[in-house]
Amino acid sequence: MRSKSWKDWKTKLHDIIYEAETPAGKLFDIILLIAIIASIILVMLESVESFDNKFHNFLNISEWIITILFSIEYVARVITVKKPLKYITSFYGVIDLLSTIPKYISLLFGGIHALAALRALRLLRVFRILKLARYLGASQVLTSAIKASRAKISVFLFAVLILCVIFGTLMYLIEGEASGFTSIPVSVYWCIVTLTTVGFGDIAPVTPIGQLIAALIMILGYGIIAVPTGIVSAEYTNRHKNDKHPNDHVQLNSHSCENCLAEHHSDRAEFCYNCGKKLKS
Amino acid sequence: MRSKSWKDWKTKLHDIIYEAETPAGKLFDIILLIAIIASIILVMLESVESFDNKFHNFLNISEWIITILFSIEYVARVITVKKPLKYITSFYGVIDLLSTIPKYISLLFGGIHALAALRALRLLRVFRILKLARYLGASQVLTSAIKASRAKISVFLFAVLILCVIFGTLMYLIEGEASGFTSIPVSVYWCIVTLTTVGFGDIAPVTPIGQLIAALIMILGYGIIAVPTGIVSAEYTNRHKNDKHPNDHVQLNSHSCENCLAEHHSDRAEFCYNCGKKLKS
Amino acid sequence: MRSKSWKDWKTKLHDIIYEAETPAGKLFDIILLIAIIASIILVMLESVESFDNKFHNFLNISEWIITILFSIEYVARVITVKKPLKYITSFYGVIDLLSTIPKYISLLFGGIHALAALRALRLLRVFRILKLARYLGASQVLTSAIKASRAKISVFLFAVLILCVIFGTLMYLIEGEASGFTSIPVSVYWCIVTLTTVGFGDIAPVTPIGQLIAALIMILGYGIIAVPTGIVSAEYTNRHKNDKHPNDHVQLNSHSCENCLAEHHSDRAEFCYNCGKKLKS
Amino acid sequence: MRSKSWKDWKTKLHDIIYEAETPAGKLFDIILLIAIIASIILVMLESVESFDNKFHNFLNISEWIITILFSIEYVARVITVKKPLKYITSFYGVIDLLSTIPKYISLLFGGIHALAALRALRLLRVFRILKLARYLGASQVLTSAIKASRAKISVFLFAVLILCVIFGTLMYLIEGEASGFTSIPVSVYWCIVTLTTVGFGDIAPVTPIGQLIAALIMILGYGIIAVPTGIVSAEYTNRHKNDKHPNDHVQLNSHSCENCLAEHHSDRAEFCYNCGKKLKS
Repeated sequence: MRSKSWKDWKTKLHDIIYEAETPAGKLFDIILLIAIIASIILVMLESVESFDNKFHNFLNISEWIITILFSIEYVARVITVKKPLKYITSFYGVIDLLSTIPKYISLLFGGIHALAALRALRLLRVFRILKLARYLGASQVLTSAIKASRAKISVFLFAVLILCVIFGTLMYLIEGEASGFTSIPVSVYWCIVTLTTVGFGDIAPVTPIGQLIAALIMILGYGIIAVPTGIVSAEYTNRHKNDKHPNDHVQLNSHSCENCLAEHHSDRAEFCYNCGKKLKS
Repeated sequence: MRSKSWKDWKTKLHDIIYEAETPAGKLFDIILLIAIIASIILVMLESVESFDNKFHNFLNISEWIITILFSIEYVARVITVKKPLKYITSFYGVIDLLSTIPKYISLLFGGIHALAALRALRLLRVFRILKLARYLGASQVLTSAIKASRAKISVFLFAVLILCVIFGTLMYLIEGEASGFTSIPVSVYWCIVTLTTVGFGDIAPVTPIGQLIAALIMILGYGIIAVPTGIVSAEYTNRHKNDKHPNDHVQLNSHSCENCLAEHHSDRAEFCYNCGKKLKS
Repeated sequence: MRSKSWKDWKTKLHDIIYEAETPAGKLFDIILLIAIIASIILVMLESVESFDNKFHNFLNISEWIITILFSIEYVARVITVKKPLKYITSFYGVIDLLSTIPKYISLLFGGIHALAALRALRLLRVFRILKLARYLGASQVLTSAIKASRAKISVFLFAVLILCVIFGTLMYLIEGEASGFTSIPVSVYWCIVTLTTVGFGDIAPVTPIGQLIAALIMILGYGIIAVPTGIVSAEYTNRHKNDKHPNDHVQLNSHSCENCLAEHHSDRAEFCYNCGKKLKS
Repeated sequence: MRSKSWKDWKTKLHDIIYEAETPAGKLFDIILLIAIIASIILVMLESVESFDNKFHNFLNISEWIITILFSIEYVARVITVKKPLKYITSFYGVIDLLSTIPKYISLLFGGIHALAALRALRLLRVFRILKLARYLGASQVLTSAIKASRAKISVFLFAVLILCVIFGTLMYLIEGEASGFTSIPVSVYWCIVTLTTVGFGDIAPVTPIGQLIAALIMILGYGIIAVPTGIVSAEYTNRHKNDKHPNDHVQLNSHSCENCLAEHHSDRAEFCYNCGKKLKS
């Protein structure tokens, strides 16, 4: 009997944590979201010295509350999921763990609690909770356009990188150490800063030939920035056009597989595409 | 009788202030536009110390003239409109009031007249007067393309922001205080400055690993700038294509509802879409 | 008889200077182009102090040669054209004059020869000589796309400008003089520098609220840069699509009207569209 | 007999070096790629002074190993190719030679070994080895879109350059030497830095009129960046649309002509398009 009630209780907890459709699940997601954002604001404020000096105790206590809440959540996730090892070794599992331990370690060693900043990675869960990716790819057209463009843009960026190595080396030979081009890696860094039109100005050419080549790099950067934009734009336009029934997309099932946490099952799916386990209807 | 003539006079004043089609209304709009631009130039010049020293009296008197004119306009607007409270609490109503009071308050307290700079917000009325929005969206295609893109671009910018928080935190841990990354908020600010390719250079990484990650952020920023551009471009292209009769758009009635100030009624509209009051033909 | 030969001679000179199709005309254009580029390089080198010190005499003599050549050309243009006043008051006429006089004036007053830099404007003639505009708009599609986009982009840039005035005023109120925001015009200038993602860094916010708003401006600038690109891109795509016969464009007659200098007459044109004078076949 | 075995051996070596399809050829390509990247990392590390001080001997020996390997490769390439002179005078031939000699020369003269940095140009071979160009232009649509856009973008960039000369000259006349605009070439350089939205900030206008014109240049740069993007984007969209069978492209033969090294023969090709020699099937 007790085992039964324990299993029931575990299933219920699983539904609250992993399912977004039930009222309790929605509430859990909203509270988690607030806790994550609060925890990040805490870490941010702690890093501001003047603020930390004034409100050290308040920040410390809040940190402990957040850390204990996240620890409880982590334990609950491990207990209720069917394949705990899979969760623990998954991307989100590692992040969830990393966001709790720095505070515990800081009890033993003082300085490491700065690592609590790693908690910022938990922000990525926002996408899962708010299902933002779904907004972005509402018509699935954008997503597939970006995917199709990704390979081309990667090769393009790789070509840009090679260009930066060549031009960076050239600038190192021309400018020398006087104007900040102290080594080839620094010159390549400067070249990336320039070609992407960021232009910090901490390093800048001073010799006429250096300025001439810098001007060339900029004009080049100005001209080639058109290429990735053109790719995404065109892929998106063409996909959009072929998309006859824009409001008739495959409905994604928001339930996750209770065995392996895989999401985005098709509505017609009866088995998890990831572990083959039968899905709950 | 007197009440009749008062009502007539009020209606006439309403037409001058709120209707743009009559000659008197057009003249009023032009004078108002000039007054707004003059008032902003005045505030600008006043903020230039060397100029203020030389022409203090001239600027002060001009300020008072503008303030009194704007006050009269504000009172006239409140009197002639049918629902004064609605106007007073509306966006333009609040701005119209804010652009007059700082000068009055400066009689009592010296320093606050710097708030007259808030008058810059009145520039937004330029859009209403010149009906610039109509130019911009002449074919209504652009407007709807931007609207359709807005949601996607917002989510996209939100994702960029999360990226900035994560990378900013990383840079804080790597660079430390020596090179200007004094706290996580400052690091996140630097990351936004870099990813948007602005690159002030007041804060710049100096450690090799910091420069490596900075380079990564820039290449990333260079690659993802293509996404919002691609979205707008594609939406606009597709809408334009489906727009069979580009010169046959719904004619917007330029008259505003005299009851609630709502604008952009369709030509066939007989009742205000906002308050249900019958429109003057 | 003499009058006849003079008229012949004048017509011949006119053909050389204004017509690009004859061998003599082509040679004249190429020599003029080289002379313009040489004159600009001269003015540039003269402005480099170290260079001017070494080669002052060489630069001075070259300057005089160029000036005299340009003067002869100017006189020849005035003599051979039928309506000299129209040429003298035209855009190119004024530039042609301006590029000669500074050197003459420098005989009387020393310092003004810096104005010879105005000669850079003659570079615009490159477009006429090389007929670059024709390359750019080879298919006439791009030209009309840019024209159609121009109005929309202008309104868009105007809106950006208003945004800069409002945000610039805000930053002046927040940041104050300590961090370089010494007056509203300077703040507006900073805001334009930031929104266009140039980011010099000579002025940069230091207060937390100032940096927050700066971040907002940048994210905004990053998002709205997509709009003009999208407009041009879409206009061009649509025009290109409707352009059934891309290689079958209206052939432009390269002859200019000998009376008023107007160019780009259609091949079927018999009269100048500008002055109504009958064109030479 | 010996001549026969020598010829066999030569053919075999040729296949390894120039053909990418055989296992030995693939292995050779991968080793070469690793060697090139290693050699560039070596040159980079050598330029970092602190690193060079610690590991000078290690770097020197590694340099010699790389140099000897590259020398052997160069000799092998010259021997096995049928037209050695064509290879030696080709782009890759010159780079291959340039990447070996600096180290030999440094035996005689100390300082020149910095020229080993020229080895960065060998990175371009990555494109040939990984056949990245093929990825980029997988559908041949992008390649032809960029080619079609190239002429227009070149003229566009040329127009931008003329604009920079004119505005740069203007800024020189207005700002003068106080704020860094020391000569016209430097002003033109600043103008390119600004118009391309790089904005180093090492030179920045300080006079009100200078800042006004700078703002104008930036707004202009912001507006015209749309043009090249629009061109590429539209060309790509249109080409993509007309591309009925996106997966049915001409298969390129990856074998190179053993006579002249020309690559990218069509699968149906029986003779080299470059030298007319019969291709090996």
